[in-house]
Amino acid sequence: MKSKPAYTQICAAHLRIYRFQHLGSITGWDRNAMMPPKGHEARAAAEAELSAHVHALRTDAGLEPGLRAAAEESLDDDERANLREMWRDWRDANALPAALVQAKSLAGARCEHAWRGQRKANDWAGFLDNFREVVRLSREEARLRSADTGLGRYDALMDRFEPGMRSADIEAIFSGMREWLPDLASRVEATQAGPAPLMPEGPFPVAGQRAVGHALMRLLGFDFEAGRLDESAHPFTGGVPEDVRMTTRYREEDFLQSLMGTIHETGHARYEQNLPRPWLGQPLGQARSFGIHESQSLSFEMQLARSRGFAGLLSPLLCEQFGNQAAFAPDNLFRLLTRVRRGFIRVEADEVTYPAHVVLRFEIERALIEGMIEVEDIPGWWDERMGTLLGLDTRGNYRDGCLQDVHWTDGSFGYFPSYTLGALYAAQWFATLRRELPDLDQRVAAGDLAPVFLWMDAHIWSQASRWETPELVRRASGETLNANHLKAHLERRYLGS
Amino acid sequence: MKSKPAYTQICAAHLRIYRFQHLGSITGWDRNAMMPPKGHEARAAAEAELSAHVHALRTDAGLEPGLRAAAEESLDDDERANLREMWRDWRDANALPAALVQAKSLAGARCEHAWRGQRKANDWAGFLDNFREVVRLSREEARLRSADTGLGRYDALMDRFEPGMRSADIEAIFSGMREWLPDLASRVEATQAGPAPLMPEGPFPVAGQRAVGHALMRLLGFDFEAGRLDESAHPFTGGVPEDVRMTTRYREEDFLQSLMGTIHETGHARYEQNLPRPWLGQPLGQARSFGIHESQSLSFEMQLARSRGFAGLLSPLLCEQFGNQAAFAPDNLFRLLTRVRRGFIRVEADEVTYPAHVVLRFEIERALIEGMIEVEDIPGWWDERMGTLLGLDTRGNYRDGCLQDVHWTDGSFGYFPSYTLGALYAAQWFATLRRELPDLDQRVAAGDLAPVFLWMDAHIWSQASRWETPELVRRASGETLNANHLKAHLERRYLGS
Repeated sequence: MKSKPAYTQICAAHLRIYRFQHLGSITGWDRNAMMPPKGHEARAAAEAELSAHVHALRTDAGLEPGLRAAAEESLDDDERANLREMWRDWRDANALPAALVQAKSLAGARCEHAWRGQRKANDWAGFLDNFREVVRLSREEARLRSADTGLGRYDALMDRFEPGMRSADIEAIFSGMREWLPDLASRVEATQAGPAPLMPEGPFPVAGQRAVGHALMRLLGFDFEAGRLDESAHPFTGGVPEDVRMTTRYREEDFLQSLMGTIHETGHARYEQNLPRPWLGQPLGQARSFGIHESQSLSFEMQLARSRGFAGLLSPLLCEQFGNQAAFAPDNLFRLLTRVRRGFIRVEADEVTYPAHVVLRFEIERALIEGMIEVEDIPGWWDERMGTLLGLDTRGNYRDGCLQDVHWTDGSFGYFPSYTLGALYAAQWFATLRRELPDLDQRVAAGDLAPVFLWMDAHIWSQASRWETPELVRRASGETLNANHLKAHLERRYLGS
Repeated sequence: MKSKPAYTQICAAHLRIYRFQHLGSITGWDRNAMMPPKGHEARAAAEAELSAHVHALRTDAGLEPGLRAAAEESLDDDERANLREMWRDWRDANALPAALVQAKSLAGARCEHAWRGQRKANDWAGFLDNFREVVRLSREEARLRSADTGLGRYDALMDRFEPGMRSADIEAIFSGMREWLPDLASRVEATQAGPAPLMPEGPFPVAGQRAVGHALMRLLGFDFEAGRLDESAHPFTGGVPEDVRMTTRYREEDFLQSLMGTIHETGHARYEQNLPRPWLGQPLGQARSFGIHESQSLSFEMQLARSRGFAGLLSPLLCEQFGNQAAFAPDNLFRLLTRVRRGFIRVEADEVTYPAHVVLRFEIERALIEGMIEVEDIPGWWDERMGTLLGLDTRGNYRDGCLQDVHWTDGSFGYFPSYTLGALYAAQWFATLRRELPDLDQRVAAGDLAPVFLWMDAHIWSQASRWETPELVRRASGETLNANHLKAHLERRYLGS
């Protein structure tokens, strides 16, 4: 083994960062799932102290010379990839002056806090008072990150969520979707115009919902020796790869939302639980990107769990817990799980119309960050695109329009594309899987999900951050990301073509 | 306000330490109450990293000059007390060379791990192989702490658990107890020789036990907005003063053990929940000592919850959850909760015989640390004292004798006295309370526990670490610690005299 003292030393530094981040992940999960209200103030102070410490470790003056020295050492391919990811982390931590980070954090917290009331009050003008400053600071952030990376301003923000992906590529894909999506949605709605599917009759006791959720998590391969399912107001997957903490939320009058949410989070969880053990603690061992992460949750929720075959697996579990209802028949369940209705709200959107919500946000936030529009232009752009893409009139309805999302309130620009990238990736994975395994649907219907897990493990989970996102996609599916597979999937599932 | 820059700076340093310790308290609670088994390795590494960081902060080179400079500044009484406690923390952190801390930690972990099997196997000889090294390192620790503090060797260890308390004082108290305790236990057993109390009939469903436990916690003033009750293999009270995490353990065939354990932990919890808010983050704001902490749990469990009046409060709660059993009648409940039986095992001992278990451990560990005996002498000392104090023959029965406790395996010498100090303090608090409030027992019987809480808050909770332990005792009860009150309490409760 060749000597690589600099590389060894920066690996140790990253392992230390990983361990402190572990503490933050667990206390963050606790804050959302366990902490009583009066614990808030002390926890916020403790977490802020930890964040400052982690930031100090990530910006330690010894890192840059260490990274430069390591580049001169004899490293293998994985070590080179790790070094690349270490540089990414270093640039990310050092790109912004502390004053800007603090100002953006304060402005974002103020804007988000006020937004909770302003959204209810449909108060766009009030929102702008705070939002202007968030946008100003986000543009400053984009300018600095752009100077640092050589990327365009919006690309420099997006690269933090989707490394290696460029907005020109996304624009090329989204512009194609803009063409076929409205028509597809209309045709699907026409197809579904007949009698509505039977609605299951509640209430659905929480204990029964929990039992079904646990059974599905087991079916989907979640390792309960290395994770938990608990409850929180906003479901999420947290914790650490060695100990994944999923949450859901139960409502006795509707089990489907919690159930599909649990399946969605299980996709995230299995990615984390199956990241390669020897790489954990190093940037190389992290999940590749937000979009790739979403491709796992949507592979589980959309590709698998809303398929006709899966409805057959779900049906007996529901009958066992909630009684033998006609609504639980597989065909009816499948219809329930694939109902398409154009609506105002992104988080309530179905598989077919969801991309439209993302396309319009991408267009607006990109133009906003690049300085092509100002905050006052947002409602007009929103109304115009909701009309074109979904045929809905949102004029004056800010509450269900451009005030509906939390993402912009704290300046998380560049995040939205990841949702639809996830759907595109997931469709591309399953198209590849079907090419390799033509009887995939029959096997899923028979409850044999192993082929899906094996493929994900070989092509996604075990690869962690070894490749830039586009390279990972090419290696997994043999082609670059494109919308053909999602289009074909939607047409097959929703139009039977 | 006078300027005190050095004091202000060391307060900020301690606040930082407090916040990092917050993270460790929550992840420690999580490890015991929530963490799935495969999370262990990564958690151990993260917690070790945190411990090393906290140790680095506590031994920071800037602290000593800061403490010296602060002593020259114009401080009020509370600030002086805080400075005294900061010095205590500084001495504690700096007393031992890192090599000794690490060696003791390793030897202790090895000895404790092997002990779990050796206890079951009654393997005293095997235990000695590891235990010799633990004792050697503990003696070295005692020598260094003694040199550092000017205290005797055993006192220097005990001072970490019971600041200001000296083994000569304890010996004076315990030698008196050695005189009256065996006779008292015999007389109580004779008094209880008649028909046994009725036993409640199980099973007792966990949901019902949880409901009774929560009801009692509310009665005892636990603030559920600032804490939780969960389950763990070994019940404990953890978390932070702002967010107290209690645990218990349920067995369906016996509800009393969990219930009294929950009441015991609620005593610890209320102390933490009522530490003075403005002092939190500073050493001044910490609970005074292990013995004072135990005085709170035993005030709740022994003084309050095993009283005849409290049995009347408990009775309807049990009937509501587990049905109307004759065994739940207040008189019978009281008899159940005050049964005295001499036995081998400390953790199963009743209120009357428990001190005997502590007295013998105190004698042995003190002699061991002072070098008056060697590890080979322990069984002989144990057998002799168990015979004298409790009339039990433990010869050759190491499993139920000197191998029964975890405390010595990792070298926690000096801790055992705190248990009985807690019982003595608690009896002294209640004697004081009764002098001030002669109808206390009637008020407790009527469900009015407020006088107890008000007294504890005024004399114990709100005082935190303001005084050395003996001074706190004098201020609260008007006299120094003595065994008269415990003796009178036991005679009144168990002999009706």
